[in-house]
Amino acid sequence: MTQLNKQWLLKQRPVGMVSPDNFELVQSPMPSPDLDAGQVLIKTLMLGFDPAMRGWLEDVRSYLPPVAIGEPMRASGVGQVIASRNAALPEGALVQGLLNWQAYSIGDPAGMIPPRILPEGVTPGIALSVFGTTSLTAYFGLLDVGQPKSGDTVLVSGAAGATGSVVAQIARLKGCRVIGIAGGAEKCAWLTDTCKLDGVIDYKSENIDARLTELCPDDVDVFFDNVGGDTLEAGISHMADFGRIVLCGAISQYNEETPQPGPNNLMILVARRIRMQGFIVIDYLDRAEEAFADLANWVMGGDIAWREDIQEGFENIPATLQRLFDGRNQGKQMLKLADPQ
Amino acid sequence: MTQLNKQWLLKQRPVGMVSPDNFELVQSPMPSPDLDAGQVLIKTLMLGFDPAMRGWLEDVRSYLPPVAIGEPMRASGVGQVIASRNAALPEGALVQGLLNWQAYSIGDPAGMIPPRILPEGVTPGIALSVFGTTSLTAYFGLLDVGQPKSGDTVLVSGAAGATGSVVAQIARLKGCRVIGIAGGAEKCAWLTDTCKLDGVIDYKSENIDARLTELCPDDVDVFFDNVGGDTLEAGISHMADFGRIVLCGAISQYNEETPQPGPNNLMILVARRIRMQGFIVIDYLDRAEEAFADLANWVMGGDIAWREDIQEGFENIPATLQRLFDGRNQGKQMLKLADPQ
Repeated sequence: MTQLNKQWLLKQRPVGMVSPDNFELVQSPMPSPDLDAGQVLIKTLMLGFDPAMRGWLEDVRSYLPPVAIGEPMRASGVGQVIASRNAALPEGALVQGLLNWQAYSIGDPAGMIPPRILPEGVTPGIALSVFGTTSLTAYFGLLDVGQPKSGDTVLVSGAAGATGSVVAQIARLKGCRVIGIAGGAEKCAWLTDTCKLDGVIDYKSENIDARLTELCPDDVDVFFDNVGGDTLEAGISHMADFGRIVLCGAISQYNEETPQPGPNNLMILVARRIRMQGFIVIDYLDRAEEAFADLANWVMGGDIAWREDIQEGFENIPATLQRLFDGRNQGKQMLKLADPQ
Repeated sequence: MTQLNKQWLLKQRPVGMVSPDNFELVQSPMPSPDLDAGQVLIKTLMLGFDPAMRGWLEDVRSYLPPVAIGEPMRASGVGQVIASRNAALPEGALVQGLLNWQAYSIGDPAGMIPPRILPEGVTPGIALSVFGTTSLTAYFGLLDVGQPKSGDTVLVSGAAGATGSVVAQIARLKGCRVIGIAGGAEKCAWLTDTCKLDGVIDYKSENIDARLTELCPDDVDVFFDNVGGDTLEAGISHMADFGRIVLCGAISQYNEETPQPGPNNLMILVARRIRMQGFIVIDYLDRAEEAFADLANWVMGGDIAWREDIQEGFENIPATLQRLFDGRNQGKQMLKLADPQ
């Protein structure tokens, strides 16, 4: 019996909200067993989901080429090496990389983002969540772009998400006063009770602008924004002189059919000498060890809390991506396909 | 006969376009002849006009307190000392400072922006134009905030204005390729023929976005924006990776009754890792000599062209401010009240 691969291919680009209809589940031949030197055959165990994936579906110039129609959807994941022509990635090893929405893939160390081996004792869930790309994004975005100083007030939107929750906790560990914006009482309670934030704003039941007036009487020195839209506009109004706005993403905007108007108060950037800066974590990959060293210390010291939201089933992959955009995910969104052997 | 002063006082805050009706011309007592030690009595010779003055009329938190109702309008100017208790500012000296919309004022070296004496040979017009605050704004905004490198493409909006024209020419002197946006064939011709820009876009007759595609095939490394609104949005779309947007002002927005929507393409700042930064020239006043040294060399070497648009008559002061907002001014807008004695 010939073994088959399974893939979710991009069928058509989404207009508005991304949907399972945009993808097509196909059975395809297994990747060639004739591996080139250095290559490995990887069985996908766990996939990670991130709002940035929505951007990869748009046919516009960006930091990565768009996923092409007919290609498997691009995604990070953890897998197990089941055939190897690479001594550094032996059979049985757990590896992390761009595995995409497919059951099996070829890992090539010569690729742009080569598979890297998981440290001893790190589970696929931990590898993709608190040691995943979202934490690198949090680390370099906050520290390098935001440059918080001890005593600063740091505002984080999307604060209960995988990136935002790590941003907020690193800021707290750096001696900042941290205010988070999140949707719903349960997420807000987790942020105050477990993540030890100094204040939270539930955007589903509270007015962000009015609450910022209460919570940030001395204004905001660093605003790490994952949300965009009205949230960005409200944050801009509460920036302190010489503040920094770290533009990480705009999850409120990704599924809009037509571009929404931007903040109407950008002149505040002039009057208050604000720096607003976008960044992409792939520019920092050569400094990843620096971040992992700090993150490992914090995680092992119990200084950073995180949550893993793990769905299951190959057929549920596209629907799991949607969970990010209606806020159903509780922490890092993942989907499990198999256990390590 | 008692000598009287004349002042234009703020009568009511403008809603929408600023108008002479917002001000009230009054005759008032001369400033006290009993000067304190260090003070001087200054007769206003020339007033300078700048788009930023519109912002001083809004009752919002900014880098300077708003002009209060009943106060003389804040304005820079050049005057002559007609009575002095300050050896450094003797009678007859020409001085530059915040003289406001009034015929006579007290100059106090202890004030926030103390009057400073004009260098030998510098006329009031030159002092307020190519050696004025707009040139300091151009110098520090471009070089410190924009950080152009030789070979960069620099885009300047409001390029025929007092600030923009100096930005564009400094960029050219630093080895950049410079594209200017201005309104009308006459201004565009001056920018190419006299200021030696590499390209111009006439926003009154051309589509900015389409022209940027033609003129900036390798995109824009530094965008110095004086205009805001649609111009800012178009510029954002043509930024190169790691580009810098220098937010100097938003003259298209200052007279809007309600805040207009901002750029709908801010996510480009993330994908292309753009830094967008506001600044105010008063933060650089302690480094003014640095700028004046370079500017003096360039001006004396014939490397920087500028234009002076000089109106006349105390009664025409408020109407002259409006000239900035309908683009009637040809270069630095000024108004002459008297010649030096």
